[in-house]
Amino acid sequence: MTTIHRVFNFAAGPAVLPVPVLEQIRRDLLALPGVGISILEISHRSKQFEGILTQAESDIRTLAGVPANYRVLFLQGGASLQFSMVPMNLLAPGGTADYIDTGSWADKAIKEGRKVGRVNVIGSTKADNYARIPSASELTPTPGAAYVHMTSNNTIEGTEWKELPPPNVIGDIPLVSDASSDIFSRPIDVARHALIYAGAQKNLGPAGVTMVIVRDDMLARSVAQAGALPTMLNYAVHAEQGSLYNTPPVFAVYALGLVMKWLLAQGGLAAIAAINERKAAKLYAEIDRTGFYRGTAHAPSRSLMNVTFRLPSEDLEKMFLKESTAAGFDGLKGHRAVGGMRASIYNAFPETGVDGLVSFMSDFERRRG
Amino acid sequence: MTTIHRVFNFAAGPAVLPVPVLEQIRRDLLALPGVGISILEISHRSKQFEGILTQAESDIRTLAGVPANYRVLFLQGGASLQFSMVPMNLLAPGGTADYIDTGSWADKAIKEGRKVGRVNVIGSTKADNYARIPSASELTPTPGAAYVHMTSNNTIEGTEWKELPPPNVIGDIPLVSDASSDIFSRPIDVARHALIYAGAQKNLGPAGVTMVIVRDDMLARSVAQAGALPTMLNYAVHAEQGSLYNTPPVFAVYALGLVMKWLLAQGGLAAIAAINERKAAKLYAEIDRTGFYRGTAHAPSRSLMNVTFRLPSEDLEKMFLKESTAAGFDGLKGHRAVGGMRASIYNAFPETGVDGLVSFMSDFERRRG
Repeated sequence: MTTIHRVFNFAAGPAVLPVPVLEQIRRDLLALPGVGISILEISHRSKQFEGILTQAESDIRTLAGVPANYRVLFLQGGASLQFSMVPMNLLAPGGTADYIDTGSWADKAIKEGRKVGRVNVIGSTKADNYARIPSASELTPTPGAAYVHMTSNNTIEGTEWKELPPPNVIGDIPLVSDASSDIFSRPIDVARHALIYAGAQKNLGPAGVTMVIVRDDMLARSVAQAGALPTMLNYAVHAEQGSLYNTPPVFAVYALGLVMKWLLAQGGLAAIAAINERKAAKLYAEIDRTGFYRGTAHAPSRSLMNVTFRLPSEDLEKMFLKESTAAGFDGLKGHRAVGGMRASIYNAFPETGVDGLVSFMSDFERRRG
Repeated sequence: MTTIHRVFNFAAGPAVLPVPVLEQIRRDLLALPGVGISILEISHRSKQFEGILTQAESDIRTLAGVPANYRVLFLQGGASLQFSMVPMNLLAPGGTADYIDTGSWADKAIKEGRKVGRVNVIGSTKADNYARIPSASELTPTPGAAYVHMTSNNTIEGTEWKELPPPNVIGDIPLVSDASSDIFSRPIDVARHALIYAGAQKNLGPAGVTMVIVRDDMLARSVAQAGALPTMLNYAVHAEQGSLYNTPPVFAVYALGLVMKWLLAQGGLAAIAAINERKAAKLYAEIDRTGFYRGTAHAPSRSLMNVTFRLPSEDLEKMFLKESTAAGFDGLKGHRAVGGMRASIYNAFPETGVDGLVSFMSDFERRRG
């Protein structure tokens, strides 16, 4: 086989996948071994696909220690559709949903929640340009709220919750987390949550499938709303039907399953967390080394997934972007809301790519600083 | 390369794809040529993916002669989510939506419509077990209806509209068609429709993307509903954002685009229609040859996509299923609502597979009849 040229892909999502996963997909693409049908063509009602789906769920349960009273669902529409499904299922008429506003995506979730019912923003770092995660003392939950919604990692702003909001603050309000951009990058205490959702395209697999982990008791709320709720947006229906109410995104579920196998082979979430910490530490050390680069997130809130930084001027940033792209470091342009650079270094991003970027940054500063 | 064993896949969907498409996907899977990033990893905001999406739309416009005042959207959630999106966008409070009830999927669309507003079933062949398409004289549209919803091909029952409901019957009521199971199997008069939707997994590509073709004037209705409508379910938002409001199912759009290129290379919709007619005619001729097999759909309503038939007894049907599977003809089991057999022979299903099945049927009758 000829060598295939691959760049270092720092994109925020869709993002880099493990090469062994891509190789396995390619190997079996024309026909699954022993089946004679491609994964792109196979019936979602076939034994083979049901096996693939069951295995993916089982591996997720193993990886994250998902308790038995939680269901794992494979849906479509990404976090953006979850912004609506969460309140449509969990927020009964007359109730209040609490949201913590930590960034652009949290804000979108709030806006969609407001279309459905009463929303109370119980903490926000908007006044600080979302450069940090609020402290526990800044949170003011609504007694009896239907749920509290948080965003575990803020892709655009480069911040991440290091601990979940403590039980003595949120009490027994069910915790809902948009974990799209740091899911399975570190151990996760599923039992502290009522619902976790994540678009696949950062840490789980290719774009096109959304994972939802939901506690059984939440499904009763979906059942109560079922009369007006579109069937496709009803968690209880998808749970009851094992994610096969309608045709699921077969290929994306398959690819996600391969990524889960790869994660298990890396040693699971604690092992990948150690690697992620090491990768991020290298980049933040370079950012902090002289003051030429400047991290945009407050240090205690820094994300291990999305490392955001600025240079001394926009001209230098343009130059950095141009030269880094030419050197094979792709996708480093930061979101326009923050500006500057963003290096997204999800689970599958190779440490050699981080080392390469650190060298490039050091060299760039020497040449242009 | 070693030969890869592939069976003849008669599944109703997800269904067979053109082998040259699978081969191209495989060839470029590790990295798109000249890009260095896999289609499974590439940012949906990249120039390369925007090019892929634009090209897919352009090829759809060419294939179907889509007029300039129509938008082509790539969404998620399949026909099942369209069952809700159509009324949520197009049916204003107080209005009435007309539905034609021609099968199990039409019935599901009706049930979801009823969750949103007033629905009038203006024609039904349920009393005939959905074995035929209603005649124009059986349709009784509601004056001023918001739209009339039809299902162009009924996958489960094996029936298909040969002509659209005539203008002298539905007048200026906007026509909405669920064309999931015969889209692009023959020329389609887009200009007669207000909205066409289709899950990809039969004739367009792998599961995971839904094509919607919508006339510009319908989008004003979405805008009018926008206050309460989840943003992800708003056609106008997706049209405005060129299907990039959120992360689209990148890979599925790419694969769909390759299938469109393949369709163009076959000579377009008229050319594929001729092949589809020939393939279906061979199967129906065998079904009608002696009376051993019995088609379940009335002859004038017979689908060119899903050929449904019974055998003289359920024992013989079990035997047929077992022996045909062993002979490399997969997925022939009919839906439980109809029983018997169903041979789904979409665009990409090879004529050699039809010829093989006809021989098998003939032989089976000789041995077991």
